[in-house]
Amino acid sequence: MRRDIYTEDHEAFRGLAREFIDKEIAPHYAEWEKAGQMPREVFEKLGALGILGVAIPPEYGGAGLRDYRYNAVLQEEAARALVTLSTVRTQLDVILPYFLAYADEQQRERWFPGLASGSLLTAIAMTEPGTGSDLAGMRTYAVRDGDDYLLSGAKTFITGGLLADLVIVVARTSTDPENRRAGLTLLVVEDGMPGFERGRVLDKMGCKVQDTVELSFDAVRVPVANRLGAEGEAFGYLGNNLSQERMTVAVGSVAQARAAITATIDYVKERKAFGKPVASFQNTKFELAAMSAEVEAAQAMVDRAVLDLVDGELSGPDAARVKLFTTEMQGRVVDRCLQLFGGYGYMSEYPIARLYTDARVARIYAGTSEVMKVIIAKSLGL
Amino acid sequence: MRRDIYTEDHEAFRGLAREFIDKEIAPHYAEWEKAGQMPREVFEKLGALGILGVAIPPEYGGAGLRDYRYNAVLQEEAARALVTLSTVRTQLDVILPYFLAYADEQQRERWFPGLASGSLLTAIAMTEPGTGSDLAGMRTYAVRDGDDYLLSGAKTFITGGLLADLVIVVARTSTDPENRRAGLTLLVVEDGMPGFERGRVLDKMGCKVQDTVELSFDAVRVPVANRLGAEGEAFGYLGNNLSQERMTVAVGSVAQARAAITATIDYVKERKAFGKPVASFQNTKFELAAMSAEVEAAQAMVDRAVLDLVDGELSGPDAARVKLFTTEMQGRVVDRCLQLFGGYGYMSEYPIARLYTDARVARIYAGTSEVMKVIIAKSLGL
Amino acid sequence: MRRDIYTEDHEAFRGLAREFIDKEIAPHYAEWEKAGQMPREVFEKLGALGILGVAIPPEYGGAGLRDYRYNAVLQEEAARALVTLSTVRTQLDVILPYFLAYADEQQRERWFPGLASGSLLTAIAMTEPGTGSDLAGMRTYAVRDGDDYLLSGAKTFITGGLLADLVIVVARTSTDPENRRAGLTLLVVEDGMPGFERGRVLDKMGCKVQDTVELSFDAVRVPVANRLGAEGEAFGYLGNNLSQERMTVAVGSVAQARAAITATIDYVKERKAFGKPVASFQNTKFELAAMSAEVEAAQAMVDRAVLDLVDGELSGPDAARVKLFTTEMQGRVVDRCLQLFGGYGYMSEYPIARLYTDARVARIYAGTSEVMKVIIAKSLGL
Amino acid sequence: MRRDIYTEDHEAFRGLAREFIDKEIAPHYAEWEKAGQMPREVFEKLGALGILGVAIPPEYGGAGLRDYRYNAVLQEEAARALVTLSTVRTQLDVILPYFLAYADEQQRERWFPGLASGSLLTAIAMTEPGTGSDLAGMRTYAVRDGDDYLLSGAKTFITGGLLADLVIVVARTSTDPENRRAGLTLLVVEDGMPGFERGRVLDKMGCKVQDTVELSFDAVRVPVANRLGAEGEAFGYLGNNLSQERMTVAVGSVAQARAAITATIDYVKERKAFGKPVASFQNTKFELAAMSAEVEAAQAMVDRAVLDLVDGELSGPDAARVKLFTTEMQGRVVDRCLQLFGGYGYMSEYPIARLYTDARVARIYAGTSEVMKVIIAKSLGL
Repeated sequence: MRRDIYTEDHEAFRGLAREFIDKEIAPHYAEWEKAGQMPREVFEKLGALGILGVAIPPEYGGAGLRDYRYNAVLQEEAARALVTLSTVRTQLDVILPYFLAYADEQQRERWFPGLASGSLLTAIAMTEPGTGSDLAGMRTYAVRDGDDYLLSGAKTFITGGLLADLVIVVARTSTDPENRRAGLTLLVVEDGMPGFERGRVLDKMGCKVQDTVELSFDAVRVPVANRLGAEGEAFGYLGNNLSQERMTVAVGSVAQARAAITATIDYVKERKAFGKPVASFQNTKFELAAMSAEVEAAQAMVDRAVLDLVDGELSGPDAARVKLFTTEMQGRVVDRCLQLFGGYGYMSEYPIARLYTDARVARIYAGTSEVMKVIIAKSLGL
Repeated sequence: MRRDIYTEDHEAFRGLAREFIDKEIAPHYAEWEKAGQMPREVFEKLGALGILGVAIPPEYGGAGLRDYRYNAVLQEEAARALVTLSTVRTQLDVILPYFLAYADEQQRERWFPGLASGSLLTAIAMTEPGTGSDLAGMRTYAVRDGDDYLLSGAKTFITGGLLADLVIVVARTSTDPENRRAGLTLLVVEDGMPGFERGRVLDKMGCKVQDTVELSFDAVRVPVANRLGAEGEAFGYLGNNLSQERMTVAVGSVAQARAAITATIDYVKERKAFGKPVASFQNTKFELAAMSAEVEAAQAMVDRAVLDLVDGELSGPDAARVKLFTTEMQGRVVDRCLQLFGGYGYMSEYPIARLYTDARVARIYAGTSEVMKVIIAKSLGL
Repeated sequence: MRRDIYTEDHEAFRGLAREFIDKEIAPHYAEWEKAGQMPREVFEKLGALGILGVAIPPEYGGAGLRDYRYNAVLQEEAARALVTLSTVRTQLDVILPYFLAYADEQQRERWFPGLASGSLLTAIAMTEPGTGSDLAGMRTYAVRDGDDYLLSGAKTFITGGLLADLVIVVARTSTDPENRRAGLTLLVVEDGMPGFERGRVLDKMGCKVQDTVELSFDAVRVPVANRLGAEGEAFGYLGNNLSQERMTVAVGSVAQARAAITATIDYVKERKAFGKPVASFQNTKFELAAMSAEVEAAQAMVDRAVLDLVDGELSGPDAARVKLFTTEMQGRVVDRCLQLFGGYGYMSEYPIARLYTDARVARIYAGTSEVMKVIIAKSLGL
Repeated sequence: MRRDIYTEDHEAFRGLAREFIDKEIAPHYAEWEKAGQMPREVFEKLGALGILGVAIPPEYGGAGLRDYRYNAVLQEEAARALVTLSTVRTQLDVILPYFLAYADEQQRERWFPGLASGSLLTAIAMTEPGTGSDLAGMRTYAVRDGDDYLLSGAKTFITGGLLADLVIVVARTSTDPENRRAGLTLLVVEDGMPGFERGRVLDKMGCKVQDTVELSFDAVRVPVANRLGAEGEAFGYLGNNLSQERMTVAVGSVAQARAAITATIDYVKERKAFGKPVASFQNTKFELAAMSAEVEAAQAMVDRAVLDLVDGELSGPDAARVKLFTTEMQGRVVDRCLQLFGGYGYMSEYPIARLYTDARVARIYAGTSEVMKVIIAKSLGL
C-alpha cells in the first residue's frame, strides 16, 4: 500500500543509510554475532557520515533535525539488509532523547560532540535483578555527599553496557515509603569511575550482535554535574520517552517482518520440494498472502503513529497499542516464514533463523505485551 | 489513534446520518429483522434527506459528490448504533457505481432521479446456483433478438432482490469457448417484465434485515436500451468495481468490530460475576485491550486505503489485503466480545449476538478470504 | 484412531439409537427448529424403546445400567445425523442424575416410572437473572411452612422449561450471611402448582430446537415430600454432578466437530469452484487435515475422561480441562468448516450453519471457558 | 488425567532412567551444549546400565524387549529434567529399528553387541542438499562392483554424524526413470572407510547438544555384507519406520511441553512483578490453565497412539495426526510459557529459552507439519 510519511529529505537519508549498511554492516554481521558485539568503529564511521548526529544541534556537530522519521528510516534499511542496528539503535532511539531533553549547557558541551562523532558510546541502566521493569521497586540508590552522589546498586539486562563510555543510571535519591515513584534521579556514570564494574555478559537466545550485561556500582562517586535533569524527576522523564522507545520496537518489528516475508518469497521461488518450487504450493501462497496483509495493516498503523509521534500527539496508550499489535504480528509472521524454509529455517546460517530468535524479544522488552495490555485497558476505562 | 481522513463536510454529513439512523432505523430494526427486510419507506426518507443522491449528478437531483468517504461515514454511523444499512448499503456502495459509470444519457434521465429520491430500488445479480463467484462459469445467457435481448437463467444470493425495481443482471452474450471471461454483458431487468420471477427468500444465519433471494429469468425480453455499458464488457466493469465493494465490507468490519468492543466495555462495567464487575477481571481487561489494538491497526489500514480509493490509487491486491485483514479481525473480535457476555451473548436480544452472526458473512461475500489470498499471492509473484 | 471404550452392548444400543434418530428425529428437525421445541411425543417414543430408562432401576421400568457411555453413544449418533438431542440430552445427562442420586423411596415410586416411560418431562432451574452461574449469589428462596415450603423467585435460561412437568428448583433455605454457599436446597416444582409461571421464551442465536425460558415462582407451595435430598445440601449435590454435565458438553462438542468435518468433506468433494472440485485445492486439504488432527486429539481426551467418569475417577479440574479443550476445538473447527462452504455455509438450510451457531454456546454453558480456567488454575496451585 | 499405558516394569525402568539422567546428563548438559555434542562416554554408561540394549535380543547382550514404551519413558524422564537425550534418542528410536528389522545373522553378530554396549555409535543419512525429505529426488548412488558397492554422493542434516561409527546411508542403486521410489538401498558405511568424509558441523538455532553434520561419499567401497536388507527395498523400509520416528517426536513434544509448564509454574510462583507474585495475576493463571488443557489433550492422544504402535496398529495417517497436533501444541505452549518469564525467558541460562529454540524443529523434522497434512488429507479421501 502507499506510504506517504517520508519526504525527499528522508529518502535521501535512506540512500545514505542503505549504502552504509550494505557496505559496513551487512558483510561483517555474522562475525560480530560471534563476537557478541558491534565494534566501536561502526559508531565512528556512522558519526563521520553524520548519521549519529541527525538530531543533535548544529553547534555540537549535528544536523539539528529532531524528526523521528530519520530513526525509522535507519531501522527500515537495516531490516531490509536482514541485520539490525544493535546498540546504535539503542543509542539513537532510546538514550539520546534523554541527553537532548535534559542535558544542561555544560553537559551539552561535554558530551554532545562525542555523541555526534561516535566517540562516546552510551547505555541506560534501569532494570535491576528481580524487579524487572517495575520502577517502583528499584533499589539502586544514590546519596548526596557534597558535590557528589555516592551511587550503589546492581543493574542487569543492560544493552551496550560492555563498551559504554557513559551510562545513564536510574537511581533512587529519596526513600519516601509513601511514594515509591518519587525520588528517582538520572546520573551519568563514566567509564573508569572507581566502583563501577561491568559484570557478566548475558547469553541470549537472539540479538547476538548486541551485548547485554550486568553492571554494578559500589559507592561510585558521581559528581552532581553528571546529574541529568532535576533530582527526583526521573520517573516523569522515563515516562516521557517510553512512547518513542516503544515506537522504535514497533518500527523494527514491522520492518523485520516485511524483510522476513521478502526473504521467504525469494526462498520459496528458488527452492523445490517434491519436484516443484515451494512457491507453487497453494499453502505457501496462502501463508505469504495472509502475512502480507498483516504486515500492511501493521505498516499503516505504525506510519500513522510515527506521524503522531513527530507531531507530539502520540498518546501512551496508543504507543502501547502499536507495540502490542506489531510485535505480536512479527512473532506470527517470522514463525510462519521459518516454517516455509523447512529444515534450512533451523540453521543459523539462514537469516530467517536469526530473524526468528531476534523477534522473540520484541514482545518482551520496552514493556511486555502484558504491560501494554494493562496500559491500554486503563485507557478504555477498565 | 488520530484519524484525519474526514473533512468538516464529512463530519456535517455524519451528523445528519447519525440523527437519521437513531430516529428512523435503530428503533425499528428488531422488527425489520423479523420481517426479513427493510421497508421501502426508508429509501424514500433517505432520498428526501439527500443521502441516497450524494454521488448522483446535481442535474438528476443529487449532490454530485463522488467521494467514497460519505459512504464510509454512513456505515460508521450505522455500526455505532449497532445496526447495518442493509440494502441501502448495497445500493449505494455496490450498485450505484455501475449506474454512475456506465449509464448512457437516456438511462441517466430514466433512472437517476429515482435512484436519488429513493423511488427506485435496485439489486445486482451475479452469483448463480453452483458456480458461486466464478464469473467464468456463469450460465445465464442473453440472445439478441432485434432491439431486445432474450434473457434466460437463474441467479441466487441476490441481496435486496425482493423489492428491487431494477436488477442489473450479468449475462453471457457470447459463447466463445476459448475465453470464458469474454461475452459478459450487464442488462437492467425491470420489475414486472414477463418471465422475471423472484424465487425463494433464503434463510440466513445473520444479516436478517436484508433479504436474500433467488431470481429466475425465462426468456425475459430486455430492450437493448436497458443494456448498461457495451456488450461483452461486463467482466472488466465488474473488476473495476470490486475494490470499492471490498472496501465497503472492510469499512463495515472495522466499524462493527469497534462497536462490538464499545458495547462489550459497557456491558462488563455494569455486569457482575462472583460479586465483582466483569470489567475488574484481568482477563476481561486483557481481552479488550488486545482487541482494541487490533481494531486500531485495522482502522489505520482502512483509512489509508479509503484515501487511496478516493484518489483512484487503490490496487486490487491492496483492496484484497484490506478486506482479508479487516474481516478476519472482525471475526476474532466479535467472538471474543461475545464470550465476555457469557450466556447473555447467546441471546438474540443482545446486539452482540447479531454482531456475531452478521460478521460471519464478511469473510465470505465480495470474495472469500481464500479468494483474497489468491489475489494477494499473485501480486507477490507467487 | 482406534477407540476402545465401548463394548458390544454399547454398540448394540448405538444401532437402536441410530435407527430412532434417523427415523424419528432427523426428518422432523427443521420443523421443530421453527417451532422452537421438540415435541413431547419424542420422549414417549424414546421411553417406549427403553432409551430414557437405561439408567433407571428395573423395578421402575428401566434397565438399571448406570453407565455414562450409553449417554455418550446417544450424543454421538445424534451428531452423526447432524441433529442434537435437545431437551432429551438435558434430561438424561444433567437432570436424571439428581433424581437417581437423591430421590427417596416414595419419590422413586412417584416419578421414576414416568421418567422411564417419557410421560414426565423435566427441567432444572439454577441460573437467575443477573447472577449467572454464581450459586453464591442466588436469591430465590424457600421458607418452611408446616409440611410445605413457600418458594419465591425468578429463574432464567431454563432449558426445556416450556414442557417440563417437574422442575428441580435450586432455592435458598437459609440466609447465613457468613456462608452464601450453605442453605441451598433442591425442590421439585410440579406443573400446575399455583404461583408457578412460565415466562418469556428466549430467542437464541442457535440451539433452536431446544426451548429456553424464564420461570417465576410467587409463593409456590411445595410439599416437603418434593424436596430432593436433604435441606441445605444442594451446593454439594450440584458440585457432584458438574463433572458429568461438563463431559456431556465435551462429548457433544467432539461428536459435532467430527460431524462437521464429515459434512464438509462431502461438500468439498462435490462442489466446484473455478472449474475444480473444492476438495482439490491444497488449502482445503490442509484445513481439513489440521481439523482432523485436532478432533482426534479431542476424541482421545474425551474417551480417556469418559472411562475416568465411569470409574468415578474423573476429577473436577480434569473435567474442566476436557470441557475447555473440546469446546474451544469445536469453535475453531466449525468456523473453518463453514468457511469451506463459501456462501452456502451462511444459509440456514445447510446444516453447517446450524452446527456453527449451535457450537457457540458450548464455550459458555455448563461453565464458561473462563470458569474452566479458574478451576484448572487452582488445581495447578495458582 | 489418569494414564494407564505403563506397567510396573516400565515404572521400574523409569526409576533407573531418572537416576541416570539426574546424575550423568543434567549436570553436564550446559557444557555439552557449548561443545555442540554429547560425549561418547554417555553411550558407554547407558550401555553398561542396559538402557541401550532394551530392545536388542538377549544373545547379543540386550534385554529383548521390543516395546516402544521404554523409549517413551526415557524421553519423558529427560524432559522432566529439562534436557534431551540428543543422539541417544536418535539411535534408539530412529536407527536401531532398522538394524533390528533388517540385519542378517552375520550383521547381528558384528554390530548388535556394540549397539547394546554403547561402543558403536550410529547415524542415518537420508536428507540431501536441495532435496530435503523427498526420497524420490535422492541423488546419492551406489554401483555394484563385485562384492562391493561404490557409493558416491552428499548428505546433510545428519544428526550424530560427528561421532558415528556406523552410518546407514540411503542410496540409489537403480535409476529407473519411471519409478523414482524404486531402487533405494541401505548401506552401512563404517568410520574410516576411504572416501567417507564428515563435512561442516551445522550451526542450529537450538538442539545444540546434538551435532548435525554434512557427510560426503566419494566412491566409498562398501562391501555387500554391509547392505542392510535387500537391494532396492529401502523405500518400503523407511516407510515402515516413519510412524515410530514421528511418535518419538510427538512423545518428546508432549513431555517437553509439560516440562515447560512445570518450570513456568515454579517460576511464576517465586518471581514478583509490581510487588505481587506473577502467579497471582489472572492472565498468568489463565495462560497456564489453557496450556494445561492442551497438554492433557496431547497426552491422551499420544498415549492412545503409543498403545496402537506397540500393538502394531498405528496407521501412518494417525501417526501424522499425532505428530502434527503435538508439535503444533508444543510450539504454542513454549511460546506462551517463555512470555511469562519476561526478560529472563530470553536468557539462555534459563531452560525455557532452550525449550523454546529446541521446540522449533519439532514442526519440521521427521516430516514437516505440511507433509503431515498431505498424509492426513489423503487418508480423508482428499
